[in-house]
Amino acid sequence: MFNKKNTKNEKLKCVPFTNVKLTDEFWAPRLQKHQETTIKSCIKQCENTGRISNFAKASGLEEGEFEGILFNDSDVYKVIEGIAYSLINNPNAHFEKITDQIIDKISAAQEIDGYLDTYFTLAKPEDRWTDMMAHETYCGGHLAEAAIAYSNSTGKNKLLDTAIKMIDHYIDVFGGQQKHWITGHQEIELALIKLYREIGDEKYLKLSKWFIEQRGHGYNFTGISWDRGLMGGPEYNQDDKPIRELIDIRGHAVRAMYYFCAVTDLADLTGDEGYIKAMDRLWESTVLKNMYITGGIGPSKSNEGFTHDYDLPDNTAYCETCASVGMVLWNHRMNLLHGDSKYADIMERALYNGVISGVSLEGDKYFYVNPLSSDGTHHREQWYDVSCCPTQIARFIPSIGNYIYTVSDKGILVNLYIASKSTIHLQGSEVNLIQTSRYPWEGLVNIKVDPGTLNEFEMKMRFPGWCRSMQLFVNDLIIENPVFEKGYIKLLREWRKGDIVTLKFDMPVEKINSHPRVISNKGKTAIQRGPVVYCFEETDNKDDFENIYIPYNAKFFTEYKEQVLGGVTVINVMHPEGNLILKAIPYYAWDNREPGRMSVWIKEERNHNTLYF
Amino acid sequence: MFNKKNTKNEKLKCVPFTNVKLTDEFWAPRLQKHQETTIKSCIKQCENTGRISNFAKASGLEEGEFEGILFNDSDVYKVIEGIAYSLINNPNAHFEKITDQIIDKISAAQEIDGYLDTYFTLAKPEDRWTDMMAHETYCGGHLAEAAIAYSNSTGKNKLLDTAIKMIDHYIDVFGGQQKHWITGHQEIELALIKLYREIGDEKYLKLSKWFIEQRGHGYNFTGISWDRGLMGGPEYNQDDKPIRELIDIRGHAVRAMYYFCAVTDLADLTGDEGYIKAMDRLWESTVLKNMYITGGIGPSKSNEGFTHDYDLPDNTAYCETCASVGMVLWNHRMNLLHGDSKYADIMERALYNGVISGVSLEGDKYFYVNPLSSDGTHHREQWYDVSCCPTQIARFIPSIGNYIYTVSDKGILVNLYIASKSTIHLQGSEVNLIQTSRYPWEGLVNIKVDPGTLNEFEMKMRFPGWCRSMQLFVNDLIIENPVFEKGYIKLLREWRKGDIVTLKFDMPVEKINSHPRVISNKGKTAIQRGPVVYCFEETDNKDDFENIYIPYNAKFFTEYKEQVLGGVTVINVMHPEGNLILKAIPYYAWDNREPGRMSVWIKEERNHNTLYF
Repeated sequence: MFNKKNTKNEKLKCVPFTNVKLTDEFWAPRLQKHQETTIKSCIKQCENTGRISNFAKASGLEEGEFEGILFNDSDVYKVIEGIAYSLINNPNAHFEKITDQIIDKISAAQEIDGYLDTYFTLAKPEDRWTDMMAHETYCGGHLAEAAIAYSNSTGKNKLLDTAIKMIDHYIDVFGGQQKHWITGHQEIELALIKLYREIGDEKYLKLSKWFIEQRGHGYNFTGISWDRGLMGGPEYNQDDKPIRELIDIRGHAVRAMYYFCAVTDLADLTGDEGYIKAMDRLWESTVLKNMYITGGIGPSKSNEGFTHDYDLPDNTAYCETCASVGMVLWNHRMNLLHGDSKYADIMERALYNGVISGVSLEGDKYFYVNPLSSDGTHHREQWYDVSCCPTQIARFIPSIGNYIYTVSDKGILVNLYIASKSTIHLQGSEVNLIQTSRYPWEGLVNIKVDPGTLNEFEMKMRFPGWCRSMQLFVNDLIIENPVFEKGYIKLLREWRKGDIVTLKFDMPVEKINSHPRVISNKGKTAIQRGPVVYCFEETDNKDDFENIYIPYNAKFFTEYKEQVLGGVTVINVMHPEGNLILKAIPYYAWDNREPGRMSVWIKEERNHNTLYF
Repeated sequence: MFNKKNTKNEKLKCVPFTNVKLTDEFWAPRLQKHQETTIKSCIKQCENTGRISNFAKASGLEEGEFEGILFNDSDVYKVIEGIAYSLINNPNAHFEKITDQIIDKISAAQEIDGYLDTYFTLAKPEDRWTDMMAHETYCGGHLAEAAIAYSNSTGKNKLLDTAIKMIDHYIDVFGGQQKHWITGHQEIELALIKLYREIGDEKYLKLSKWFIEQRGHGYNFTGISWDRGLMGGPEYNQDDKPIRELIDIRGHAVRAMYYFCAVTDLADLTGDEGYIKAMDRLWESTVLKNMYITGGIGPSKSNEGFTHDYDLPDNTAYCETCASVGMVLWNHRMNLLHGDSKYADIMERALYNGVISGVSLEGDKYFYVNPLSSDGTHHREQWYDVSCCPTQIARFIPSIGNYIYTVSDKGILVNLYIASKSTIHLQGSEVNLIQTSRYPWEGLVNIKVDPGTLNEFEMKMRFPGWCRSMQLFVNDLIIENPVFEKGYIKLLREWRKGDIVTLKFDMPVEKINSHPRVISNKGKTAIQRGPVVYCFEETDNKDDFENIYIPYNAKFFTEYKEQVLGGVTVINVMHPEGNLILKAIPYYAWDNREPGRMSVWIKEERNHNTLYF
């Protein structure tokens, strides 16, 4: 094992998934199902599509040619990363054994100098490092992420050794800055920082920064994306300007997210003002002008990415699942950088909406594309040739434990409300927290604190962005004037074992209006309750679906239905002068019953008789 | 006792206060306090100011001249009406005895022909029925209301006999339509209908209609109001047009309310389309364009009334307490006419805000004028020369039991959520309802039903206008698709003894914006929680009071404080990037601590970074 380095400058640190055990009704069953179906099916798909045998072939253990698309290695790595997270909440000797076997093949496929990419080893061994768009470092980055996760989860370092050897090879190739290089699809940048945080050797940090700084100087001379005929060019690839000069979010959405993850990490580690300003600017550009209500980003299929501000069509929304996951990853890092709940708000918005819409409730079908309305023809599929989204789901869903808490020098920040038992290392002691809650269906959260050997420290609880009003108690005594700090409610006190912080968030149904410049939502409204965005499916609203609307003074009945869609709060929309007119379900749960039309934004009746004062 | 007539045409009937016993934390203690201080102080003031001895003098029991203002009799009647209601929840032999003694004096003051008005009897016996503005019928109406209330409450009919004799005298004077007459201050019209409903003789109804139809034909030739130099003219007195032709609400606010009460009653009793249309039109004019957020009406001091649409200044708002009570009385009747919860919404809005602001928490000081902001110089007083408002409070507060339920042929409508035990006569049987709730501080309401000998009937629960979303249960089972009817949730079922209807109204803090045409509220917001409108007092917000504002993404902490202002939910307004910035209390409770500035509407930060999608 490596000694983790206590990295400089970072004020806030992640509480790793290994210390967080979920006990809730929403995520814990989802994680179990995820292991039973998603992980299982992804392994099977990786086997059936030759993704795993490519490693066996590259190592000479099997005969044959490379199969599939050139970045298929990455899917295997992502599934391993998912298994690693999954084992914390659902230990499973069978999956661990299978994974160990796959890892053996991966390690065996590594070339003597550390190079590891089965496409080039098998198909074009002489063309290594000749095509910037060939995703060698994209695959490599995912290997590193998987290796770190698996090491942390199981204590087994074989994959990590392989990854380190591969990265050391990267340093041989690029470390002396022998050649200019633009990573065709950002990913290695953030993986190198993860490795730096894991191992503490600054050479990884240095290489990450070098990759980042390479962009925007015209080094990728063609600027053409090889993959699937997507619209290319430097902007597509965030290679049109250096990071410090980027102003508006543009180009391929997933690339942008992974890129910004790394830059945000670097900003945090180095305190570089240029990076910080760039990230703040691009965050505003992304969140305020280019994000869907689901936390989804990237409206256009043509470039899998951004177009122009406020271009957020519903029906043709691309909103790749990977991009929503990217929003979680980036906003998590922005929150580590700034300790401001507004980033956790976006993280949560993506999480409960645009991310988990990407997978069926059974865990075995996936959306690549997550539109906000459908004519009834858009459905999840079991796999894709380019299967980044299924394997993104495979690795992301069980990683939820990473995002609940962060720690500062002064105490603990609670970012997400998910019932769980956690052990948090703070000021040399162990603080145990037990969260209980029916979130996101109910606004009541209890956090039981066992401060260990500590006395006074801060507990900072996020006041969710979706929430306007709440009540706060400690041990059933109301707290009159809690201190606010960057959107967190700060309780600085001497904690005693068994202290209970109670948060009662008012969670009414809210009607949300769109920015007036979003053309497709003109005259429309969406409904949200807590962090969950709702949609209307034809199967619940068969009568004249294309003309459904929300009355100006609509009344909403909420109803938790255990038997519906895996347990959801359904919203019945009532006309106050008539009967039920509409039924809404969580957006993430759509397309899990009979096929039909769906819409998040629907017409809203505007009435001059609205009560004003 | 008289037999109450089962009047025709009326679909909905009031459940009288005699059948409703309050048990709640908000009203029941208020009613007790009301008896101990308000009733007591009003009796004392009536004694000290000669109001009671005027009766003794008029009857010859005492010597002396008429004291005070010519309509002072009405205050005594209103206090008796208040005592009558008060005895239901707080039986009190002492007050009953005092009242009986006052009633003896009143009866003794009646002239042989039935005429009863101590001003004219004592000061101008020869000028009876010569000055339309002299409030003879205004006083007479209040006598009739008091008499009916006292008869119902105590079973004692002496005052009712007196009132009937007086009304019969009115019929002698006006019944043959010998002369044209405009009532100077409407009141008798609604009292006559109460008497008709009580006794069943259509002559009262006929006289009421005659008074109503007299208006708007130029019969009140001068059109000048005698009282206190107020701006007069036919419009002031709603005498510019016949009721069927009135379009916009104008003139003196209290006069208008009492007038419309009678017209609405008549519309209900007769089904007259012209009356119904006039009331609907004037209701929209009043509520949508001329009402304050407190339910207060009448912005102008110059005419104690209306000016032009959207003229709703905060600081100079007149909002006479009597006018807010008038809004309750009128909207109660509009609801009886239409059975639509939107009227109960306005009734409740006035009730929890503009009405009870009219009295101090101790119950011994009164606002005549209820502005929405104050420079610190506006305070409640113990009494006024024109003391209509204190005695309006005296009679209104304990009458709350009248407004909770109504009954239809099909069942029961729940208009207000107030913990209480009630016996409701329905379809020849007795239905007992027990409401439990901490309303208006909490949104949870339980209604326990004992259907008596009945099986199936409707229970219709108002879905409050302030509320967007709720959950509904019967015996802890969620009701999926309740039927809505005119804003009421309708449960039609076979009831069994002990059935419990549970309503969970989401009750977040809401920011309310004003109509853009209300100039004084431009750029401002008000906050409301449940039915309660909040205000900011300088004593809670001493730092730079004139520049207080609500941040665009303000977070609210709500906190029920038993020891503050008689027990209120306080709202702490937090800046999400800082600490407490403001503390708000219910508007009705202002000016109960140290004097200072107050404001309901305060500046709201508008921010281009508001999260949109």
